Amino acid sequence: MDPRVGAPRAASFRLPHNGWLFDLDGTVYRGETPIPGAAETIAALRTAGRRVAFLSNKPLATRADYAAKLTRLGIPTVADDVISSSLVLARHLRRLDAGAPVFVIGEPPLVAELSAHGFEARTDARVRWVVIAFDRTFDYAKLNTALQAVRGGARLIATNPDRTCPTETGEIPDCAGMIAAVEAVTGVPVEVIVGKPSPLMLEMALERLGLPARECAVVGDRIETDVVMGKRLGLATVLVLSGVTRADDPRIAEVAPDAVLGSIGELVQTI
Amino acid sequence: MDPRVGAPRAASFRLPHNGWLFDLDGTVYRGETPIPGAAETIAALRTAGRRVAFLSNKPLATRADYAAKLTRLGIPTVADDVISSSLVLARHLRRLDAGAPVFVIGEPPLVAELSAHGFEARTDARVRWVVIAFDRTFDYAKLNTALQAVRGGARLIATNPDRTCPTETGEIPDCAGMIAAVEAVTGVPVEVIVGKPSPLMLEMALERLGLPARECAVVGDRIETDVVMGKRLGLATVLVLSGVTRADDPRIAEVAPDAVLGSIGELVQTI
Repeated sequence: MDPRVGAPRAASFRLPHNGWLFDLDGTVYRGETPIPGAAETIAALRTAGRRVAFLSNKPLATRADYAAKLTRLGIPTVADDVISSSLVLARHLRRLDAGAPVFVIGEPPLVAELSAHGFEARTDARVRWVVIAFDRTFDYAKLNTALQAVRGGARLIATNPDRTCPTETGEIPDCAGMIAAVEAVTGVPVEVIVGKPSPLMLEMALERLGLPARECAVVGDRIETDVVMGKRLGLATVLVLSGVTRADDPRIAEVAPDAVLGSIGELVQTI
Repeated sequence: MDPRVGAPRAASFRLPHNGWLFDLDGTVYRGETPIPGAAETIAALRTAGRRVAFLSNKPLATRADYAAKLTRLGIPTVADDVISSSLVLARHLRRLDAGAPVFVIGEPPLVAELSAHGFEARTDARVRWVVIAFDRTFDYAKLNTALQAVRGGARLIATNPDRTCPTETGEIPDCAGMIAAVEAVTGVPVEVIVGKPSPLMLEMALERLGLPARECAVVGDRIETDVVMGKRLGLATVLVLSGVTRADDPRIAEVAPDAVLGSIGELVQTI
């Protein structure tokens, strides 16, 4: 019998791994535009029984928002398959100090994730942690509240280390600006940044996939976060050139991802 | 004839210097309260023909405001005797790039000083310098404007390096927070910080006094700015313990100011 008849067409992949973790911005989409081939590649992986989850350092939307966006772009996704820096922070902080009063330099989706994990957002002397995130409403009053909280004994934790965030109209300041301001005025360093390239985010993503690191691959457009993080924990790493990294970047040879592709669409080989 | 009759009483000083530079906050006053003996000491120096000027890293008021405050506290002062970080920045930038379009992270008194020195404050792509100062209206939009300006080629200059500013109700975030945020998101370091301990501020103050460094003394409450700066340029240095430095600070022995006094009041010796 002709194998092309009556069954989904088999796909061939550049890597044999069972678990696949995809960065979002610059890898699966850019702004509101899907990267060509993203939906087909992820559908083919799922059809072939591979497990897929998504990673984002950006704490500006809820996991449900990310899932809805992916679904809208042709990649049906549930919120639990999205591992955001907000989720990783909330879970990690719950292990460190469950139920602690926190002051949040961040936007409402992060506050909601923290609340869902049992944390109460406050601004007074009882604050035990200052949570620092990418926050487009960051201002002097928040910086001052953070300073007073640290003087009262509060500790510092942050979502992501990115300097800037690409948007369709250019790069805008990201969490590194908020972290640096707080560290500078308090003289106290942030204890942990949970987002990529922290292993914390990858560990939670592997837990979601239910697979060991050696059976998984991570696909992303940033060498210093996606690729470095994957290599540290022993995943296969795929750098895509559809985002911030250029083909002539000298770090590609240094860091040596397992594969360098033009985009996610090239993960599935034409049969 | 009795020397105590018919002539101002002669004063004796702990140091014989002809020029005297005084820090303001923590040295001459704390908030709205003069340090005991400040007015008498400065009056005695002036009566004895010594020259006096005042230094402030704080760009939140105009020099006229500082002069009015000193006058109100019993120390009659003209604006030209106040050397502020705003003034030093405006003068230094005029030497570097006269008339350049600037974007200002700062409050209205700084903008006014820059304007008085021929600089136009803008927010567009023509900006050649981002001026970073202690700014209680600092926010994400300003951070983003600074980022876009630097991407367009603008350079960075700042008023003062202080982490925090003491107030009557506690310390609040100072210019170091704004500097760190801009450096972190742009990846570009500030080229020059003109305020204490920069020699730029001291050079302009000596110019105002019209005296060489060896004939002058600087009096302040901060080791890392007032004393360090004075020592670098060869002035006599007097640390007063009426501000942020405690008598048991180990840096006092390391940095070795020429005199350590409880307060400005002890500069004049009882006869």
